[in-house]
Amino acid sequence: MIIIMKPGSTEADIDDVCRRVADFGFRTHLSRGEVRTIIGVVGDDRAKEQLLALQALDAVEGVVRILQPFKLASREAHPESTQFKIGDVPVGGRQIVVMAGPCAVESRPQLLAVAEAVKEGGAHILRGGAFKPRTSPYAFQGLEEEGLALLSEASRKTGLPVVTEVMEPDKVEVVAEHADVLQIGARNVQNFSLLKRVAECGKPVLLKRGMSTSIQEWLLSAEYVLAGGNPNVILCERGIRTFETATRYTLDLNAIPVVKKLSHLPVFVDPSHGTGHWEYVAAMARAGLAAGADGLIIEVHNKPEEALSDGPQSLKPDRFAALMRELRPLAEVLGRSL
Amino acid sequence: MIIIMKPGSTEADIDDVCRRVADFGFRTHLSRGEVRTIIGVVGDDRAKEQLLALQALDAVEGVVRILQPFKLASREAHPESTQFKIGDVPVGGRQIVVMAGPCAVESRPQLLAVAEAVKEGGAHILRGGAFKPRTSPYAFQGLEEEGLALLSEASRKTGLPVVTEVMEPDKVEVVAEHADVLQIGARNVQNFSLLKRVAECGKPVLLKRGMSTSIQEWLLSAEYVLAGGNPNVILCERGIRTFETATRYTLDLNAIPVVKKLSHLPVFVDPSHGTGHWEYVAAMARAGLAAGADGLIIEVHNKPEEALSDGPQSLKPDRFAALMRELRPLAEVLGRSL
Amino acid sequence: MIIIMKPGSTEADIDDVCRRVADFGFRTHLSRGEVRTIIGVVGDDRAKEQLLALQALDAVEGVVRILQPFKLASREAHPESTQFKIGDVPVGGRQIVVMAGPCAVESRPQLLAVAEAVKEGGAHILRGGAFKPRTSPYAFQGLEEEGLALLSEASRKTGLPVVTEVMEPDKVEVVAEHADVLQIGARNVQNFSLLKRVAECGKPVLLKRGMSTSIQEWLLSAEYVLAGGNPNVILCERGIRTFETATRYTLDLNAIPVVKKLSHLPVFVDPSHGTGHWEYVAAMARAGLAAGADGLIIEVHNKPEEALSDGPQSLKPDRFAALMRELRPLAEVLGRSL
Amino acid sequence: MIIIMKPGSTEADIDDVCRRVADFGFRTHLSRGEVRTIIGVVGDDRAKEQLLALQALDAVEGVVRILQPFKLASREAHPESTQFKIGDVPVGGRQIVVMAGPCAVESRPQLLAVAEAVKEGGAHILRGGAFKPRTSPYAFQGLEEEGLALLSEASRKTGLPVVTEVMEPDKVEVVAEHADVLQIGARNVQNFSLLKRVAECGKPVLLKRGMSTSIQEWLLSAEYVLAGGNPNVILCERGIRTFETATRYTLDLNAIPVVKKLSHLPVFVDPSHGTGHWEYVAAMARAGLAAGADGLIIEVHNKPEEALSDGPQSLKPDRFAALMRELRPLAEVLGRSL
Repeated sequence: MIIIMKPGSTEADIDDVCRRVADFGFRTHLSRGEVRTIIGVVGDDRAKEQLLALQALDAVEGVVRILQPFKLASREAHPESTQFKIGDVPVGGRQIVVMAGPCAVESRPQLLAVAEAVKEGGAHILRGGAFKPRTSPYAFQGLEEEGLALLSEASRKTGLPVVTEVMEPDKVEVVAEHADVLQIGARNVQNFSLLKRVAECGKPVLLKRGMSTSIQEWLLSAEYVLAGGNPNVILCERGIRTFETATRYTLDLNAIPVVKKLSHLPVFVDPSHGTGHWEYVAAMARAGLAAGADGLIIEVHNKPEEALSDGPQSLKPDRFAALMRELRPLAEVLGRSL
Repeated sequence: MIIIMKPGSTEADIDDVCRRVADFGFRTHLSRGEVRTIIGVVGDDRAKEQLLALQALDAVEGVVRILQPFKLASREAHPESTQFKIGDVPVGGRQIVVMAGPCAVESRPQLLAVAEAVKEGGAHILRGGAFKPRTSPYAFQGLEEEGLALLSEASRKTGLPVVTEVMEPDKVEVVAEHADVLQIGARNVQNFSLLKRVAECGKPVLLKRGMSTSIQEWLLSAEYVLAGGNPNVILCERGIRTFETATRYTLDLNAIPVVKKLSHLPVFVDPSHGTGHWEYVAAMARAGLAAGADGLIIEVHNKPEEALSDGPQSLKPDRFAALMRELRPLAEVLGRSL
Repeated sequence: MIIIMKPGSTEADIDDVCRRVADFGFRTHLSRGEVRTIIGVVGDDRAKEQLLALQALDAVEGVVRILQPFKLASREAHPESTQFKIGDVPVGGRQIVVMAGPCAVESRPQLLAVAEAVKEGGAHILRGGAFKPRTSPYAFQGLEEEGLALLSEASRKTGLPVVTEVMEPDKVEVVAEHADVLQIGARNVQNFSLLKRVAECGKPVLLKRGMSTSIQEWLLSAEYVLAGGNPNVILCERGIRTFETATRYTLDLNAIPVVKKLSHLPVFVDPSHGTGHWEYVAAMARAGLAAGADGLIIEVHNKPEEALSDGPQSLKPDRFAALMRELRPLAEVLGRSL
Repeated sequence: MIIIMKPGSTEADIDDVCRRVADFGFRTHLSRGEVRTIIGVVGDDRAKEQLLALQALDAVEGVVRILQPFKLASREAHPESTQFKIGDVPVGGRQIVVMAGPCAVESRPQLLAVAEAVKEGGAHILRGGAFKPRTSPYAFQGLEEEGLALLSEASRKTGLPVVTEVMEPDKVEVVAEHADVLQIGARNVQNFSLLKRVAECGKPVLLKRGMSTSIQEWLLSAEYVLAGGNPNVILCERGIRTFETATRYTLDLNAIPVVKKLSHLPVFVDPSHGTGHWEYVAAMARAGLAAGADGLIIEVHNKPEEALSDGPQSLKPDRFAALMRELRPLAEVLGRSL
């Protein structure tokens, strides 16, 4: 970290800051410019968080962070890309992984029909929400435990592993019994109690980016899971909130190369939530792969116009299958397989 | 709601949509423009959520919501402004209510010193975090239950009621034992499991706006609490995320008159988190009152430069007292008291 | 357009609005809901702009636009995709068009070196700024007319057509003498005087999206050029401003499929400005093509570390050539050629 | 500026950067951390802009700016607040200045009626647009020169000085003949050709913040005018673009205390454009003053529902007069006069 002193700060001011830094156990290094003095802080990074409080001193103009504040999630500390398996599906390697299924588990026939369809289309993992975070209390809130049981059944029938969302710490155990991957939704990316609990649980985690989470904050949320002893985290870009209203969110594909540079964790893309309109899903799925994503998560529904959640952004099974056929040669030309 | 058909949609398309709307139990009303046909949906609003799925039909261009999706939180349904008491402190009436205290409870001496100071300065309610949502897992996470006990002690000593944050459903009970108001932080504004639990608990709730929560979504989160049977909700604007980096967030004071128009709930302003710099707190506290806020929540620390959390945005006790002296005549000229 | 009346509005209020709408020359169509009456406006769209003023009436809750406000730019009015030629280079068809060159023309040797390099790498059009919009008055402002002459020379030597920015109406003529395509920069996307002048000039226009321009506003800016009699407009996405700071802007690739749906105009992508870092340019160039872009504009500099403008986002010639080799098979698999 | 080297950079890399910095005429100061070496650059600030290009070097991780890039606009260089007069109206001192009038000059009767009304209400300066930047080419574009003549007439009749917008460099002269203050609109805040021309003209300039202009960029635009020899610049906050759609823009009152800290220039607030709804204008006008603004600019129209531009955000004359009566005691309690 670097501490910038205000112009006109005295030697006593500078000494005071240096002493306080030393009290935290760090060494300092002074650099006197023509107008401002700059104090470099030397030492282990993670504990430096607290130095930000020095901005409260009258003589301090600002404190600038030089190093990224995450460690376990950083590629600097861990240059090899992380790879692991979900069931038999390898994540983070050459293979592009596609998760697909309905937004919400609505009924046994609906789930089984969609599960069969996405399997046939070539998906590797079945998605489906049993616990649903809904903006309105009057919207369908999910089948909850009953939905989890249906997901297990669909998984047995199709052989596809299951990813589903967990929304509160107390439900981690029961969700983990039925799911192969625990999804942390965008609205819970900074639900730190939940992050600590899924870390303990040990199952792979799909960590969606929040709609206003910076990439740095997102990686710090991943750091909570890694620091809790769970190394198997997939990051998933799903759109951020901007001024543009033509799409539901703004899918931020820039995040793919940025995360690939900063971190070793695999990155997926969710073009369904990212755009909010099924007509844009294929284009953004292609673009996601081309930007370097390791996988996709796509909403598929057999009757989108009757869906209890997110119908407008769901693909019909035949459109999903057509997209998969389109993505295969694209993956190949990008040096991946699908 | 209004359903806009694509140009070129046939009578069969229109009939199909009307039939589906009727299946949901609503009546329809056709309006044929030169280019597009528009289908108005007539009936009870809350259940209309699901009609949004009709956007998935090929012949439908869009579905436009006409009514606000919240009901209990709306001024239309409840024209009188909500008023209630926290201890002896009346909220939502003529009186401006000031909550003040440290970001985090750090120690007994720190909390007691700050509590005495804010009481002396004129605060009505003591704030202080025992459970802290921290972006980094390496930052101070709060004293938890020990912090709650200290808040209780400080409350007894000063006679000030206490507001403190609760971060997970399982902690609602223990927090409610020590707190007079339960704070839902910005990162949990759409933690629906938590909202449902604080609704059951019955204690007043201070519901912070999320950093990327629209005013409509914020009121829908309040609706979760109201619909759960708890009418005593205070909304608190604390800054949204924008492109501007000169302030930590962008305190959105426009939200005050907008919420006052749309809802009957009291609205507070948090200039400390909203700006992130103590130097801007006084100006934005004044502006918040002038915009029509019913109260303020302000961070105060006896040694901001040693604070374990949010030091740069904390006022020292003497600056807090000076601000209170400045706010009193301002409140008066605005027809309020402080 | 649809006019939503406030609940409790009287027959007289409704009549008043209908009469005002009729005075503008439109017909109305009433739809009475349980709570609100809705007035549909029937008639030619473009002149409806002024109806928005009816929101100022006390009895009116809001005015909702149903149709897109642009006409000549819309795919609805003009279903075929626009195609035209810049020199011999066909734009808007099967071929992907690549514009490349330095951010700013800095000197004769610099420009000629880069021009040769991008030609060799496979670029179709040479870019280079002679007039530079710089945030700071102390930054290099461009070689102006001298730069234009150098661009002409480079064009003659390489055979590449030239695209360069024009910043004020009075310079349109001189820029058009030296350029094959006139670029309107992001900061001038709503410089309507300039748009009117380039419309008259008749040369093809590359219209960059502003950093906070919605897609609808961007297409309305294109409409200024089309309505002025110039049909040859290329839209160019170059990144919007969001809260994320890891990239200089957030390149919004969602805009590609959205514009393709709404408009018949060709769309290009600028991954250099969009990300601000050369390390991310290749990934976002690939993603742009995969999302459906008709072309790219890429900054190339022989010595980025000495560039007078935008060095950090410029590719070196060998990296540009490598990117082009990578893009060719990608274009093919997408059904395009490069 | 500070140059951060990548971990693993060699002595040769560091020497190379230091040599390049020296070539630009600056001295360097090395600070070796445990992981990264940091190179401080010592010397005159303004010319440092170009050092940003060093980020293009492979061994450089980043270049961090320490000083604000503006100089003439900074309070550091010019601690006294700027004060000047527009006609007899003192700007930047104790007195709050109110500019009011219609968005657009539409006709002689309209302008004269509104001008008389705002004078009677207590406005100090008459506003009115003769050249109108309109998003759509089909919207009313202003009366242009005829509108300027009407403004002059209204000014003579009421004795109020006039502020009106100039949109292109070539019109600066004619606008300056009729106006006492030249307004640069939000869409032209980075129209650098225009800024240079109004600098030469010498008349006071009202510089609106762009809808996505950071405070730093805004002050750099002011720097263009100051560096061109014109010291009389008023900054005007008018709302930024965010995700929130309940208001047309998000009036960013945080900008007031930030600008007051960074700069000596007077700051005004435009609650009409900032919110886009007349119902919110009074609250945000009050809040603007309380935040420390030196003046307001408010849209007033005698028949807002027939306005050719921005009717929904215009106050009627009686509401304007009521607001002024409300603002006077508020100004007093803030230590200002109105």
